[in-house]
Parts: sequence; structure tokens; C-alpha cells
Amino acid sequence: MAKPVHIGLLGLGTVGSGVVRILQENRASILERAGRPLELRRILVRDLHKKRAVSVSPDLLTTSPADLLDDPEIEVIVEVMGGVEPARQYLAEALRRRKHVVTANKELIAKEGHPLLDLATRSGVFFLFEASVAGGIPIVKALRDSLAANRISQLMGIINGTTNYILTRMARDGSSFEEALREAQARGYAEADPSSDVDGYDAAYKLVILASLAFGTRVPVERVYIEGIRSVTPVDIAYARELGYVVKLLAIGKDLGESVQLRVHPTLIPQEHPLAAVSDVYNAVFIEGNAVGQLMFYGRGAGDLPTGSAVVADLIEVARHLERGPVIPACSCYTQKPLLPMGKVTSQFYLRMEVLDKPGVLARIAGAFGEAEVSLASVIQKGRGIQPVTLVFVTHEVAEENLRRALDQIRRLPCVHAIKNVIRVEGERP
Amino acid sequence: MAKPVHIGLLGLGTVGSGVVRILQENRASILERAGRPLELRRILVRDLHKKRAVSVSPDLLTTSPADLLDDPEIEVIVEVMGGVEPARQYLAEALRRRKHVVTANKELIAKEGHPLLDLATRSGVFFLFEASVAGGIPIVKALRDSLAANRISQLMGIINGTTNYILTRMARDGSSFEEALREAQARGYAEADPSSDVDGYDAAYKLVILASLAFGTRVPVERVYIEGIRSVTPVDIAYARELGYVVKLLAIGKDLGESVQLRVHPTLIPQEHPLAAVSDVYNAVFIEGNAVGQLMFYGRGAGDLPTGSAVVADLIEVARHLERGPVIPACSCYTQKPLLPMGKVTSQFYLRMEVLDKPGVLARIAGAFGEAEVSLASVIQKGRGIQPVTLVFVTHEVAEENLRRALDQIRRLPCVHAIKNVIRVEGERP
Repeated sequence: MAKPVHIGLLGLGTVGSGVVRILQENRASILERAGRPLELRRILVRDLHKKRAVSVSPDLLTTSPADLLDDPEIEVIVEVMGGVEPARQYLAEALRRRKHVVTANKELIAKEGHPLLDLATRSGVFFLFEASVAGGIPIVKALRDSLAANRISQLMGIINGTTNYILTRMARDGSSFEEALREAQARGYAEADPSSDVDGYDAAYKLVILASLAFGTRVPVERVYIEGIRSVTPVDIAYARELGYVVKLLAIGKDLGESVQLRVHPTLIPQEHPLAAVSDVYNAVFIEGNAVGQLMFYGRGAGDLPTGSAVVADLIEVARHLERGPVIPACSCYTQKPLLPMGKVTSQFYLRMEVLDKPGVLARIAGAFGEAEVSLASVIQKGRGIQPVTLVFVTHEVAEENLRRALDQIRRLPCVHAIKNVIRVEGERP
Repeated sequence: MAKPVHIGLLGLGTVGSGVVRILQENRASILERAGRPLELRRILVRDLHKKRAVSVSPDLLTTSPADLLDDPEIEVIVEVMGGVEPARQYLAEALRRRKHVVTANKELIAKEGHPLLDLATRSGVFFLFEASVAGGIPIVKALRDSLAANRISQLMGIINGTTNYILTRMARDGSSFEEALREAQARGYAEADPSSDVDGYDAAYKLVILASLAFGTRVPVERVYIEGIRSVTPVDIAYARELGYVVKLLAIGKDLGESVQLRVHPTLIPQEHPLAAVSDVYNAVFIEGNAVGQLMFYGRGAGDLPTGSAVVADLIEVARHLERGPVIPACSCYTQKPLLPMGKVTSQFYLRMEVLDKPGVLARIAGAFGEAEVSLASVIQKGRGIQPVTLVFVTHEVAEENLRRALDQIRRLPCVHAIKNVIRVEGERP
């Protein structure tokens, strides 16, 4: 029997329990594929006596990180605690001691990934983080290895399950954001404080990680344009459907050659687009590469077993190469491109406004669009006779600053009651 | 500058030209990721003077395989000739000389993969074949590496672009199989002799490769149940739609624990299933693993650049590990499970028959189903008053041998004019 790989696990919450279960239940096939048994040697927890979702020997549990970090037998540290500190500090210490690291921590990678990756490269150890983005979907390895022959021009991801569940419910049942959020909370898909999900921050962390792999460029998460889904209404979803679109929270990254753009916001995408069929808590990442063309990866973006699947896949990679160590630098960030300011970003726009129903109104609004060089792809007018009436526009592709100029004009027109919503539109119709 | 990796290319057809173009156009980013330049040193062609889709120096071309195999500077052989012989013979020779091998040849891998993989393992060299299944979709690496923590219970693939294009056209335009095939041929999506695609053999080769990776078991391609799409009619597609299904040619593999089943046949899948939205020449592979849950990979299954993308990704993997060689055996076939006979395979069935429209007919047919323990999920009767009328059934899940017994009974009923079609149904409704 080959010598086991001894693992120290930091954290035994949802993902930690999933890792333990997979190592237990798939022991035989994992041994076959890793070449060596993967053995948990120590688990750091906050409370030794808490009831756990998995059965582990109480001897494994400890509240002292030194029990893992100081143990020379532990060759790999798996971090599934979440949050930046103290995870960062523990992992830095592990890397300095030349222990390999596998982590599922998106916030840590997005905010502090680079110094840790550099440290791993200097120590000649693995630093793997497949589980940090889109749970069980193997998108990190795909970008690093399988698509290495490509220059990636864009990626669009549904990478937050909570918001996708909420938007799916709103579309299916016509419920409001608040109702759908309550349902998500009741099912355990949203936290009591849902802000990190519904305001787009969670997706932004993952986007920063994906973009550094896809485009080889680093963007601080603070500089990503972020807009959550609180302003999306069932009315907008219904108009979008009438126009042939669905509304999704997308994380979008584009490499424009001289610059990159990164943004997270509600987005109309054509009903025929592969991302449009991604419902409920499912995640998907859509990629365009200059050789491979369009590619999409679909699966569960969260949960104990799907995320655990990604963690254990990384562990198997470490086990296979343990004696030799990694052959490539941990980080593939080899270029540094500036971020395109949002004003210069171009896209199509969906606009919903309430106006007075009287002759000449449409002409005045269309005139304001024209002056700002915004051209229109479609118009819907509903509710004739009732004041105010709703006007819905979809523009052709236009720079945001031009659209803003047009909207500033339109907002000042006396016949315009209110601009109710502005949502970007992405994705070509096939 | 790091020492280049010298490559010998066998074949300069569609895929070979794609490989050359990618190596030329993405040279800088490939160098960054491979750590060493990838340099074509010799290309085996049949005709030195043929006009090529890419510009290569005439000095590189040769008609003699020995110019590649005998060259000690060539460390990697890329095979994109297709067909079993002489490709098999060249690759065996290359492996014996400890050259690494990358191939896109599905027929070769499906029929002769095992001895070649064993030879590669004995020689301690890479034998990679990502491009042999589903073109640019990185499904081979996903099964080998990213899903290594899982036991895979089933996979379902749309892995033949030609038939998916034909079925998409038939569904959209109501055209017949023959019309849609002619259109596919006119667009270059189908060959003059379309048999390998439309009769399901191409999909069967790929299924055998996927199953050996997913289930760790080898099944000779001759033992796969294969049924092509020639018998699918626009009438069946329309009834399927009415019942909430689309018709696709699926390659299906299931690991039942004690046995496996492998089959390629037209299949009704629910409209809400992720595979239902895969249209035109696109491919997709849907997987269920015991940790990751449901996962789907979507992209272009053929073409010069998508397939070339997979070939060059394999080349980059070889380049990264060139000095150290592979760490795991080339083959992951570690179990040997028997194939379940088709009579024992269970699924739902769609049945269309023409019957005389007179009292008691449905009762007699339903009785024959009941006797064979086939229970019905839905029934449609159309065309009352015109003789014969059409009856469409969808059964609940049943073993094929039971269904056949019922159909033998039903065929003998005097009121039954003809059983017009029998199509399997797969995929749970969400």
C-alpha cells in the first residue's frame, strides 16, 4: 500500500463536511485515481463538542491551528473556513512551511490571492482553488489547462446560485424580489443577511478570479462595477420575455486587447442563449475563445458535495504530483491591462419609462436618443389611455456615457414621468 | 529562451490545419502557458503539392513517416490523420521510441486504444486524446482530473454534430430526414456518405471512450447498442413536442454498480432538460456524479479550430511535464464490469401506432400493455373519424423485454394497423 497523503482540514462547516463525506464514501475510487490514500489527520474547528453532519473521530478535532501547522506529517492543508482572516494567516504560514494548499475561499483568493500565490511559487508547493468559483463546475482547471491554447475574449457567468434562484422564481411565479428572497431564505438558499449575494459582491469575487485566469490580468475587486438584483421587478421580467429575453445576474469579463472590462449586473439575454436555460440554483460559465469558439460549463455552484467534489479533485492533483511538486507557477497573471471605465463600456440597453400619453411624446424621446447617438432596436408602448403609459425601449449597442447623456435629456422632458429601470442587454441571438 | 518542444504532425487536413493556425496565431500566450515554445518540425502529408488552408514552409512537409519517427529531435507526435491504419502503426512505433503522443482519432482510440495506452505506460510517455471526443469540449480531462473525486453514475451526450443539426432542422422547419440531410451536406456538416454519422457509429466510438474514463470499464464498440436517426420523422418530433419533449440522438452510458449499459439511439428528453437546448452542430455532455451532482459541458464538437484547441491543450500539458513524464498511468480502466443486455435495460418509451377507429380498441391495446406489466404515462389520440387513427403512448419506465412482449401482442391485434415508431425516453423532468 502506498504511503498515505496526510491532510489537515481548516474548518468543518458545510464544505468541510462535504469533503469528509466524499473522502469516506469514495475512498476506493479516489485511491485508484490519486495513487495514494488521502487521509485526514487533523481538523481545526471552533467548537469541539458541536454536533456534526458527518461522523469523524473526536481525536481528529482540535481548536489549535498549531496542531495542523506544526505537524510535519501533514503535507496538505485544506482551507474551507471562509473569510479573509484568520484563513490568510494560516495559509501563509502553511505555505512558508512548504505545505501544499487547497482552498475553497473565494473572498480570500479575490482579495489576497496574489501574495499567497507568489509565496506558493517561491516555496515550490501547490496552491489550488478550483472550489472557490462555481462549486463543482471545473472552470478553474478548464481555464488553466484545457483552454490554454486559446486567447479568451469574453466570459459571462451565472455564478451566484441565490440570485439565480430568486430571478427564476420571479420569472416563473411573477413574485416580487422580496417574496422570492423570502422563499430562498426559507429553503436555505439565501442567508438571513442576503446582501453579499443579492448585491452582487459574491459574484464579483468569483469574477475577479475567473478574469485573472482567463485574461492573465489582475483587477482588484473594488474596481469591478457591481449592481445587484434588488431593482429588478416582475414587470421588467415580463417585458423582457415579450421582447425575447430572460433576466439574469451576469458576471461579465471581456478582454478588448488594450483593456479589460469587468462587471456584475442584472442583464437581459436572448431566450435562445445557452445561459438563458440555466435556472434555479444552478450556475454556468459561458466562454468565448479564439480557437474553441463558444463553450459553456453548467452545474451546481454551491453545496457541501458539489464544492467538496472540487476540493477533493484538487487534493487528487496534489497527491498525484506530491513528490515532484508543481511544474508551473501557481499564478498565470502575466499581463497587466487597464480596466475600461464604465462610461466607455458599450452594450445594448433595456429601458422602461412612464410618460404622458399625448401626441409627440415618442418623437421628443426618440429625438433625445438621436442627439446622443443612441439608436433604437425595439419599442413597446402599453396601456394607451391610462396616464401615465409605459414605454419600453431596447437600444442598439452604445457606450454607457452616450446613454447617460440621452437619459439626462429625457429625464428633463416635461412629458416624461419617470425612468423606471435601465438594464443592460448582452449576448447575440444565434 | 527555453528550449523548444519539437513536434511531428501526422496529417494536415481540417484538424491539422487548425493545429497549425493555433500554434501560429496564439504563439505568445501558448509560450507563456507551456513554458517552452511549441515548434512544428515535420508534417506528414500524402501530397506535397496540394494547396493548403494554412501557410507552412514546404521544407516541413514530407511523405515519409520515417522522417518523423526516426528524428530524435521530435519529442511529440501529433496524429490527426484519422482511421485505424496506418495511424495505429505509426503511433505504436512512436511510443516504442518513447515519443509522447497526442491524437484526435476517435476510431483509433475506441478500437485500438488499450494496447496503445499500455504501450505508452510501459514507455513512460504521454498518450493524450482530448480531441477524440466532442472537439473543443474538455470532457476527457474533466473525467480524468476534475471529476476524479466522483463515482459517475451516468452520462448522456449529444456528441455527433451532424445528427444534431439534422434533428434541429427537422424540428424547426418540419422537414423530413432526407431534406435535412441534404441541407447538412450542402453546408459541409455531413459527408457524401453520411452513414457513420446518421447511423450512430461516430457517436458510439466517442461513447466507448467516455465510458472507459467515467466508469473505468472497457466495452468493445461492437457491443454498444446502436440505432441511428433515419427512422425519426417530423410527425414523431411534433408529437414529442406536444408531450413536452425534444428528440435528440443521445449516447448514453450508465453504471449500475454490477453492470454497465452503453447505447446510442434517438431519444425523447424533456424540454426543460439542459440537453434539450443544445441545437445545431453544438455538442454537449451531461454527467451525473455522486458528489458533484448534475454537470453539463457544451460547445463545438468538431471543426478545425475547436478540435485544434483540444489538441494544442494536450500539447501544452506534454510540454509542461516533458522532463518528468506522466505521473499516472495513461489508462484509468481499473474495473471490468459486464454489459447489461438490452432486454434488461429499463427506460420510458414513446410509441406511435395506427389503429382502426372503433370501440374497444384502446381497451384491447391497454390490456396488452397491462399483461406485459407496461404501465402508461400518457396517451394522445388524434384524427378521430379518419381511418386509421394515430395513437401515441408514453410508457412509464419498463424493461425492454417487457415492452417487446407487449408490442408482439399488440402487433397481432386485428385492430392495429401498424406500429409506426418506438423511441426511448430519458431524463427526469426537473
